[in-house]
Amino acid sequence: MKRKPVITLLSDFGLKDPYVAEMKAVILSICPEASIVDISHEVNKYDKRIGAYMLARAAPLFPKGTIHVAVVDPEVGTKRKPIIITTKHHLYVGPDNGLLILSAEKEGIGKVYEITNKNYMLRNISRTFHGRDIFSPAAAYLALGISASDFGPEISEIIKPSFSQPKVRGQEVLGEVLHVDKFGNIVTNISSEHLKRIGVKEEETLTIMLKNSKIAMKWCSSYSEVPIGTPLLIEGSGGFLEVAVNQGDASKLLGAKSGDKIVLRVQE
Amino acid sequence: MKRKPVITLLSDFGLKDPYVAEMKAVILSICPEASIVDISHEVNKYDKRIGAYMLARAAPLFPKGTIHVAVVDPEVGTKRKPIIITTKHHLYVGPDNGLLILSAEKEGIGKVYEITNKNYMLRNISRTFHGRDIFSPAAAYLALGISASDFGPEISEIIKPSFSQPKVRGQEVLGEVLHVDKFGNIVTNISSEHLKRIGVKEEETLTIMLKNSKIAMKWCSSYSEVPIGTPLLIEGSGGFLEVAVNQGDASKLLGAKSGDKIVLRVQE
Amino acid sequence: MKRKPVITLLSDFGLKDPYVAEMKAVILSICPEASIVDISHEVNKYDKRIGAYMLARAAPLFPKGTIHVAVVDPEVGTKRKPIIITTKHHLYVGPDNGLLILSAEKEGIGKVYEITNKNYMLRNISRTFHGRDIFSPAAAYLALGISASDFGPEISEIIKPSFSQPKVRGQEVLGEVLHVDKFGNIVTNISSEHLKRIGVKEEETLTIMLKNSKIAMKWCSSYSEVPIGTPLLIEGSGGFLEVAVNQGDASKLLGAKSGDKIVLRVQE
Repeated sequence: MKRKPVITLLSDFGLKDPYVAEMKAVILSICPEASIVDISHEVNKYDKRIGAYMLARAAPLFPKGTIHVAVVDPEVGTKRKPIIITTKHHLYVGPDNGLLILSAEKEGIGKVYEITNKNYMLRNISRTFHGRDIFSPAAAYLALGISASDFGPEISEIIKPSFSQPKVRGQEVLGEVLHVDKFGNIVTNISSEHLKRIGVKEEETLTIMLKNSKIAMKWCSSYSEVPIGTPLLIEGSGGFLEVAVNQGDASKLLGAKSGDKIVLRVQE
Repeated sequence: MKRKPVITLLSDFGLKDPYVAEMKAVILSICPEASIVDISHEVNKYDKRIGAYMLARAAPLFPKGTIHVAVVDPEVGTKRKPIIITTKHHLYVGPDNGLLILSAEKEGIGKVYEITNKNYMLRNISRTFHGRDIFSPAAAYLALGISASDFGPEISEIIKPSFSQPKVRGQEVLGEVLHVDKFGNIVTNISSEHLKRIGVKEEETLTIMLKNSKIAMKWCSSYSEVPIGTPLLIEGSGGFLEVAVNQGDASKLLGAKSGDKIVLRVQE
Repeated sequence: MKRKPVITLLSDFGLKDPYVAEMKAVILSICPEASIVDISHEVNKYDKRIGAYMLARAAPLFPKGTIHVAVVDPEVGTKRKPIIITTKHHLYVGPDNGLLILSAEKEGIGKVYEITNKNYMLRNISRTFHGRDIFSPAAAYLALGISASDFGPEISEIIKPSFSQPKVRGQEVLGEVLHVDKFGNIVTNISSEHLKRIGVKEEETLTIMLKNSKIAMKWCSSYSEVPIGTPLLIEGSGGFLEVAVNQGDASKLLGAKSGDKIVLRVQE
């Protein structure tokens, strides 16, 4: 028996306006069998970095074959390309602006196609709402079984913003703050894998440079491994390394916010 | 194969309280196969005009046969009638207070029935929550295939509030502001069709009277057809004419808000 | 034909973060046929009492066999037990902290099982997100038909917080305020059943003690049975007794808030 296709939606549209419902209407009109799940529509307006982070947390958990539509799209109506990214497990649909990359790279990017085939768009394309007019129909046709390669030409270059690419350089990893959560935890774009590549192991102490601070921190597997009020490094439930404070607020202590540069370095 | 029935919900109940979930529980208890989609539950409390606008944007995009339930119902518990409206494509369920009309008229109203048959209501009807006790069961029974005419007598008169009826008078169209969106665009209840009836064509300039202003504006197909900061008239993605300002905020410039009268007139 | 299983979700996670979507991803990965309905995710942070109230309003309305997952879980990561409660109609999954009880007791508690079987959890259990790692998989496996008794040992003691247990003592019922709604109605944890046990009948007057006030009130079936501005007792649409004021705000008049003690007594 064929599984019912799952389509997820992420955007900065909010839930007050009927925009998300319009996307669902378009999807169900093309593929009535689709099961649609919202990831979040409360991404801060135009904040691709946080959108990318939320997508990268939730998307990989969905069943094999899930189609993820993400629309944080400040350049809608310009020449930025609408794309489909294939990975081993999933399909990603959205603007070529870095929003999809963090999640797709976690799974391993297969091929990337530009969406140009007008047979798979709404008849009238508005200048401002490609989520409804291009991305939703694309997802629905993918759910019907149309191959990603039928939507347009394969492309080799896609936008890779800084938040998708921590750099390993000698004994340090250079990254960025993706998000500060409601507990003040500082979520970075760096994974355990990066630390292992510079030879740091869990339970070891390393040097963190963030804003004007340079602090030694233990790479812990639980908050309580350090005294109350002490900063630590820990892998968050989304798979990214986070700077936290045991029973405290790391963001207040260190003054960090989304977009800040961060360096993790072998202890001196 | 029979399509899975789609039921949409729109209300001013918000998403904090469990009221929307109670409606869904009732629907799924009667018609487990229904696929339920939220249009919006963040309509401003009791604001039928904005609810009607949101419904009219999103509802017509849904698949043929979709049942739309809308509940912005300040007169619940009084003698206002619960009704079903049929159109060529859809069924509308809600209070007879104008909420359903803008959308139903866009599709062409077929017949209207008052819901009086207690077989298709919950056993105990609360005085304050007809969304759960009358409208949700009605939608679920319609989804099961019960004919609209089985719910009660056909009625010929329904409430038509001013926001559902722009008037064409000589060389002018008299309408109303439905909504001011977050970009300050002033969404009217007037469609391109009305302008054509007074002989105005796209790309032409016309006179707009709104609040105490009387301004000449071009009927554009994109914002950039006028200089930055200049007001224009444009068909919005919801199918209604909007007063906008290229890269500016029309609502601030003109001081307009939901409910204001507006006149579009052949240029003098 | 087997009905599609329904799983409901209630939490204090909010809808901005992707946490709820992660729970849905886990559920759909295990049981693709599940139909998932949100009850509310806007429960005040850590407020088990209001979460319990919302669950008790909405959950019993769902179809027989529905699995309810509720996560308001300030003690996550401590020794509080993850449990499954069976009732005649439904299954409840969540922490053993009283959150599930108000609703389960309304239906009649059958058996209670502690969830200990690691075959029905995610492979890696985070310390902070049992909603995703333990409760969601449990619900999904229940939806697949796994028996509640396969998840772990039956237990006989569960946490019964004060808000789940109004006490009948002689001629009075001692209860608690569950919630103050947006109209200022004071929702108690007391039902009509309790009043009948002390011999009070609808339409009779009784004495209410709340904060420092002691007031005689009529047990009404509609607000308009008392003059405007007068307090009354009425059964709310959620099945609990509420103190209200005809066209007024009971919470302001009496200064009551969630958690306050309340006594209903045969009139002196």
